[in-house]
Amino acid sequence: MEKIAIYPGSFDPLTNGHMDIIERGVKLFDHLIVAVLVNAEKNPLFTLEERMVLIGKSISHIPNASVISFTGLTVSYARQRGASFILRGLRAVSDYEYELQLANTNLHLDPEIETVLMMTSKEYSFLSSSVVKGAARLGGNVSGLVPQPVLEALRSKFSQV
Amino acid sequence: MEKIAIYPGSFDPLTNGHMDIIERGVKLFDHLIVAVLVNAEKNPLFTLEERMVLIGKSISHIPNASVISFTGLTVSYARQRGASFILRGLRAVSDYEYELQLANTNLHLDPEIETVLMMTSKEYSFLSSSVVKGAARLGGNVSGLVPQPVLEALRSKFSQV
Amino acid sequence: MEKIAIYPGSFDPLTNGHMDIIERGVKLFDHLIVAVLVNAEKNPLFTLEERMVLIGKSISHIPNASVISFTGLTVSYARQRGASFILRGLRAVSDYEYELQLANTNLHLDPEIETVLMMTSKEYSFLSSSVVKGAARLGGNVSGLVPQPVLEALRSKFSQV
Amino acid sequence: MEKIAIYPGSFDPLTNGHMDIIERGVKLFDHLIVAVLVNAEKNPLFTLEERMVLIGKSISHIPNASVISFTGLTVSYARQRGASFILRGLRAVSDYEYELQLANTNLHLDPEIETVLMMTSKEYSFLSSSVVKGAARLGGNVSGLVPQPVLEALRSKFSQV
Amino acid sequence: MEKIAIYPGSFDPLTNGHMDIIERGVKLFDHLIVAVLVNAEKNPLFTLEERMVLIGKSISHIPNASVISFTGLTVSYARQRGASFILRGLRAVSDYEYELQLANTNLHLDPEIETVLMMTSKEYSFLSSSVVKGAARLGGNVSGLVPQPVLEALRSKFSQV
Amino acid sequence: MEKIAIYPGSFDPLTNGHMDIIERGVKLFDHLIVAVLVNAEKNPLFTLEERMVLIGKSISHIPNASVISFTGLTVSYARQRGASFILRGLRAVSDYEYELQLANTNLHLDPEIETVLMMTSKEYSFLSSSVVKGAARLGGNVSGLVPQPVLEALRSKFSQV
Repeated sequence: MEKIAIYPGSFDPLTNGHMDIIERGVKLFDHLIVAVLVNAEKNPLFTLEERMVLIGKSISHIPNASVISFTGLTVSYARQRGASFILRGLRAVSDYEYELQLANTNLHLDPEIETVLMMTSKEYSFLSSSVVKGAARLGGNVSGLVPQPVLEALRSKFSQV
Repeated sequence: MEKIAIYPGSFDPLTNGHMDIIERGVKLFDHLIVAVLVNAEKNPLFTLEERMVLIGKSISHIPNASVISFTGLTVSYARQRGASFILRGLRAVSDYEYELQLANTNLHLDPEIETVLMMTSKEYSFLSSSVVKGAARLGGNVSGLVPQPVLEALRSKFSQV
Repeated sequence: MEKIAIYPGSFDPLTNGHMDIIERGVKLFDHLIVAVLVNAEKNPLFTLEERMVLIGKSISHIPNASVISFTGLTVSYARQRGASFILRGLRAVSDYEYELQLANTNLHLDPEIETVLMMTSKEYSFLSSSVVKGAARLGGNVSGLVPQPVLEALRSKFSQV
Repeated sequence: MEKIAIYPGSFDPLTNGHMDIIERGVKLFDHLIVAVLVNAEKNPLFTLEERMVLIGKSISHIPNASVISFTGLTVSYARQRGASFILRGLRAVSDYEYELQLANTNLHLDPEIETVLMMTSKEYSFLSSSVVKGAARLGGNVSGLVPQPVLEALRSKFSQV
Repeated sequence: MEKIAIYPGSFDPLTNGHMDIIERGVKLFDHLIVAVLVNAEKNPLFTLEERMVLIGKSISHIPNASVISFTGLTVSYARQRGASFILRGLRAVSDYEYELQLANTNLHLDPEIETVLMMTSKEYSFLSSSVVKGAARLGGNVSGLVPQPVLEALRSKFSQV
Repeated sequence: MEKIAIYPGSFDPLTNGHMDIIERGVKLFDHLIVAVLVNAEKNPLFTLEERMVLIGKSISHIPNASVISFTGLTVSYARQRGASFILRGLRAVSDYEYELQLANTNLHLDPEIETVLMMTSKEYSFLSSSVVKGAARLGGNVSGLVPQPVLEALRSKFSQV
């Protein structure tokens, strides 16, 4: 049976930390679906459409990865897509307890969907979408922290030349 | 002297994790007052009145527990009710440091009111009101996570039949 | 029914952090038994007898506290003494996860014995028996960190005048 | 290409927490090798041979799992066995930072071997081999915490009838 | 070369925990600039001007400390002021991972600006501006938690006499 | 007044994480003394003399750093050397609470000696002397994790060519 996983998140925007998990995750699964949560962020920097386009461009070189948007329970969406796994990245900071709570809640809601975790490489272990947005908004150089299409979109958004 | 404790919280809504602490806390104290904070949540799912009714129904079988609402400092309210103890539950995740800060602040504000902590049973150690609300809002089945009166109220709130 | 608690530990030696928990714990229980674990430490600084004498002297002003030694499972000893509660102190550092694991193991072994936790005052939140031993061994002044009888015993042990 | 993982540990003894990870891990990989570290524990309760026999009995119903012992670097052994993945379990307590450090060290030593983590079910989130040994040694009932073959071995080891 | 550091924050309001870091920090640097972030808080209790005046009064006895406001990236402002160091305080609770992420982000944005951390004294290790505001708003006595000028400003703000 | 700091540790052996802290620490102080604890490790891999020689070779390019060994309390040794500061490195994992306890104990023992902390760069945030020893002992390649003199000493120690 094909092993399909979804990698859910708000990706506002996609960072090199996310790319690291995607590139390592596709070794583990037959297909990996990057699944953008609709309305996850109250006031997103990028619209849902912009986020999906940026992800699509950034993963175009990976044959067994795709991007899609979804609403509702992550486990329900996984089941609907035939995915038995949810992939999540762990960083050095702050998200362990949140991920633990999330994994347990999802296990309660659907015991047949397993959560699988991979550690973000140490280069990106302090990186988050909000760190990137905060630095870019104040004129900080975020090259090396995000894929090229996102870097260009941030520069255009904040009028950096 | 009678040992009275208050168990403060926003209880929006009461979960089985809260029930676990209440049922174990009443063994320790002569009387336990479940004290609902007025205005604790900016946009509560349930009104103060709804929350108090749901708690009242859920603890009706416990003779030495009662429910009340309060505003202002927790230690001031405790003193006013003749309670020398504040009961708090600890879960596996995330609330240890917050509880530590809260206990120390309360000790500074009134050194005669002691904070007592009990560990939430492992069945509920990943459970919170916001997890329950998040899952119920998206159509997830939260039976087993909340008392029966809360389950019915959630179903009615989100039109689940 | 009388509410009896045991406060188990190796107490090698008793510190002001332990004293803080004992003095606050006796407000909560009718009787508090300070229970010294036999063989808890591989190479204790003080013998079991010395530790019990030091605790006895230090708590002599507290009418509803006593000291005893025990071996075997903590929950079995609690049950044997008619104690329904185990009291534990929490400090700012390092013991939360250990206490969580201990409380859950004890709950599994005997579901009728409840673990109750109190926060060590911030003055002693970084204090442990091993910190005291380490400093005293190297000639550091540990007055203010341990009760007077322990201070004298440490000075005599390390030939400090 | 077949996806092979090793699940390394000292397993002194195998617990139901380990079994939980094995049973969920075999859904993710084509083959899972339970790999017992030689000399991991200074004074093990069970010999290497005993541990391997107990694991073998406990996983005999799982077609795509096997048990083996190894010495040396985990990544070198994985490579030698054609395994591209190392599986590790995460519990609610204490092992997150250790696992993070281990995963990063292994990634440094061999960047082609990926570490994959799964969360231990909340029933076993406070369970460890040392908790089991500690309780069994003092006469505690550890049924429900270990597989049946291990329970019998512990009873025989500690002369419990 | 003169060693200049900035100590950035929102200081809404300055607490005795901040004062503790300032008084210890000036021993380490030739000059310490307390730098108030413009717009750091959405709805501050005190205006930027009020916060600067309160800090100015509270540090008037310290010859090598000054107060200023700034906007934009902290590292850019540090460079502009000739400061090679950013000073941050660490408390017992909650800010370690945030500080770790901040220090790493700043190092990425400007590798020549070093972040230096000092531990807040244990008396103030549970203290934060939001704890102070929360307690003062509900009528709690916060003397001992903030410098005298801030205490007076809080009393005037909340009409306490 | 000259600002002198000691950087205490067992350094068995010195790693690139230690080097990172030393190279960044010398920017902050007029002189930095790398202070090797005598007998800190029960069974050290390298003798005290070997460790001092390896440190001496590794820091020979840094004009305001030196190496020395010491015994007794760190604060007493600092005072004896005219050092008002103790420098410590913080990594992403595991040492925050230990450092917090250490800093507080040292502050109690001598309130005039300040502990200053710097974050280890993310490249070395998972690195420790024991990780290096463990990997080298099993034949792992630790180049990139330790300075060149230490790499050669480890290869000679474990007969790697």
